[in-house]
Amino acid sequence: MLTSTSAHAGHATVAQWVQNIKGAALRELFPLVTRADVTSFAFGLPAAELLPLKDYAAASSRVLSLDPRALQYQLPPESLKIHIQGLLASRGVNCRPDQIFLTAGAQQATHSLVNLFLEQRGQVLVEEVAYEGLQTALTPLQPEILAVPSGMESGMDLDAVESQLVRGARPAFIYAITDGHNPLSLSLSQASRIRLVEMARRFRIPILEDDVFGFLSYDGPALPPMRALDEEWVFYIGSLSKTLAPALRIGWIVAPAAFSPALHFLKQSNDLDTTTLSQLTVSSYLDTGVFPSHLATLRREYGKRRDAMLNALKAHFPLEARWRKPTCGMFIWVELPPEIDTIDLLRMAVKTEQVAFMPGAIFAMSGNRGARNGIRLNFTHCPVEQIEPGVARLARVLKRFMRSGR
Amino acid sequence: MLTSTSAHAGHATVAQWVQNIKGAALRELFPLVTRADVTSFAFGLPAAELLPLKDYAAASSRVLSLDPRALQYQLPPESLKIHIQGLLASRGVNCRPDQIFLTAGAQQATHSLVNLFLEQRGQVLVEEVAYEGLQTALTPLQPEILAVPSGMESGMDLDAVESQLVRGARPAFIYAITDGHNPLSLSLSQASRIRLVEMARRFRIPILEDDVFGFLSYDGPALPPMRALDEEWVFYIGSLSKTLAPALRIGWIVAPAAFSPALHFLKQSNDLDTTTLSQLTVSSYLDTGVFPSHLATLRREYGKRRDAMLNALKAHFPLEARWRKPTCGMFIWVELPPEIDTIDLLRMAVKTEQVAFMPGAIFAMSGNRGARNGIRLNFTHCPVEQIEPGVARLARVLKRFMRSGR
Repeated sequence: MLTSTSAHAGHATVAQWVQNIKGAALRELFPLVTRADVTSFAFGLPAAELLPLKDYAAASSRVLSLDPRALQYQLPPESLKIHIQGLLASRGVNCRPDQIFLTAGAQQATHSLVNLFLEQRGQVLVEEVAYEGLQTALTPLQPEILAVPSGMESGMDLDAVESQLVRGARPAFIYAITDGHNPLSLSLSQASRIRLVEMARRFRIPILEDDVFGFLSYDGPALPPMRALDEEWVFYIGSLSKTLAPALRIGWIVAPAAFSPALHFLKQSNDLDTTTLSQLTVSSYLDTGVFPSHLATLRREYGKRRDAMLNALKAHFPLEARWRKPTCGMFIWVELPPEIDTIDLLRMAVKTEQVAFMPGAIFAMSGNRGARNGIRLNFTHCPVEQIEPGVARLARVLKRFMRSGR
Repeated sequence: MLTSTSAHAGHATVAQWVQNIKGAALRELFPLVTRADVTSFAFGLPAAELLPLKDYAAASSRVLSLDPRALQYQLPPESLKIHIQGLLASRGVNCRPDQIFLTAGAQQATHSLVNLFLEQRGQVLVEEVAYEGLQTALTPLQPEILAVPSGMESGMDLDAVESQLVRGARPAFIYAITDGHNPLSLSLSQASRIRLVEMARRFRIPILEDDVFGFLSYDGPALPPMRALDEEWVFYIGSLSKTLAPALRIGWIVAPAAFSPALHFLKQSNDLDTTTLSQLTVSSYLDTGVFPSHLATLRREYGKRRDAMLNALKAHFPLEARWRKPTCGMFIWVELPPEIDTIDLLRMAVKTEQVAFMPGAIFAMSGNRGARNGIRLNFTHCPVEQIEPGVARLARVLKRFMRSGR
């Protein structure tokens, strides 16, 4: 790692925040979880065989043959915003196209909102266990993290949030994943949604609502996201990466139109705002009307995989392990006894049983050690027939690991 | 514009830098320069009719039918880095694929390097008249700008650079466009390239070398960029937006491999680094070997348009106007008498003669007023037969404007 004091004699001096990058310890895990011979429950990947390659290829051909400006600089297409408006209406969110701001995936939406609200070394309110993409977006701004715990049943501890705010904390924003929390696989209750929005209004703190998993619901539709309750304080982050395809980089923010000039400036600053070929192609794909049935297929297939994983956990995992049935998303979060370091467990699991997961430490905010005994299991990527055997092998390692007293 | 003190009663509070966004005065110009009935020399657009739509469509079909992981999350393709390595070799730059870092266009490359080196409120050394995309990348970090003048003949004033550095300034970086400067349309001499690199080494200051125009050369190949002279202090920014197509967002950084982890972290932070479909498709397009002849076509056609514009300027513009013949890039920079405010001129030009250009004020760093009498004329976008009549109309407005004593 480079440091701002020039680790290597000849190097240019980098900004101080670069020293805060999570180091080699975590990066060395990636070769482990991506090995070809390993059954990996590690990443939040869609099922490759369910990606709509043919329909997308047809849309791509249409756009490239019919639109002579397809490869030129142009403005983000209004047609895609109108499609997104319709998708959001199906989640109970009413918004206008001028409140929709297109981004290169949800990560860029998050990065933009972080930079819109957060001063260098400002404060943010985040759960102790949080999506790692939020953490990478925050790092260059070196914020003070006001961390609140999360319950295994109810999610973000709203008493802790209120207590921070009542004591005078005024974070730049509160970050929340309403449905299918990554990594905790929880969804907030309606009462929690209402309470959090009320706190945002009362204390005048924007909520960054990350809703990339709300469309992947397995027991009927998810509740409407918080943006359905408030359009002034809730800044909604959406994406087609989980439901259509990750490589297309279609994400968006829903925000009051007054913030558009600043968001537009940020997008210009980041990448000039011109991934329009992908946007035009996705819009053409959505024109065909096949997306609702594609979504239904995903819900059915991913629902089967979720159930297969839940059944396998019940059949094979030790009694000390705890998890909940997720209603949305791509993950099951399993809490193991507190003495277990799941990074060590991962190394053993890959070595002895060729099975991988994401260790909880990846999601621990600002060096917090509380999540080290958790593991995040993805159930969407592996074919259903690999899930039970993979979980059984993981359970074998785990039991061996627990017996060895590690 | 939103302010950090909440212009509207109900608004969430935005970060302080948002107040520094260039305001409505400049934004209001954009509808003017994009009006359908206007001959626009304003933007740095490729010729739409020369974009390789068919070849790109064929590559897109190949990738989507042959690569089942085309829509999935994956790592940036090594094959594209190897193609870029070959392209750079043709510019006299030797580098390895592990020194090439793919980005979403040159803007994201610039944004990443700015964030790699620059602390909040740190110093940077930039020309007084600079590419506006650099300015948007800098704004959120609120730097102190050490501005140096540029000569109409020699470009960046290297005596001024040296004087700043000798007096002890240690900016986070020096930003330079080596060939086809945007907007000044100059290329640095070989002596200037060598001198600037020597200063970078001597004072240990990285150079951000923006080379997006070096491949568009009209009087034989451009000189090798500064990266050919130094691989430690020169951080090279490249792009296919000007030579292949803007909508694909293919750009790159060439940097010592030791900086890869930090650049990778920044890319993850910004957009997760997964625009791989576009990267795979461009790589497949480059596999076919048609790019060199496409480049030759661009050089020939754009060269004709450049010459048409130079001839028209000579035929129609008043004697007081000054410009140079650019050897690279997309622009001709014209200096008008110092009393002329080219924003006012633009308004009159669009209104009375339906012709547009980019006024110099857009490129003035940090409120500097020195460029207000300059205009940037793009010669690549308009068909060659529109150039002479457009310049003639612009000259008519200009002469009227000068007579009116504005």
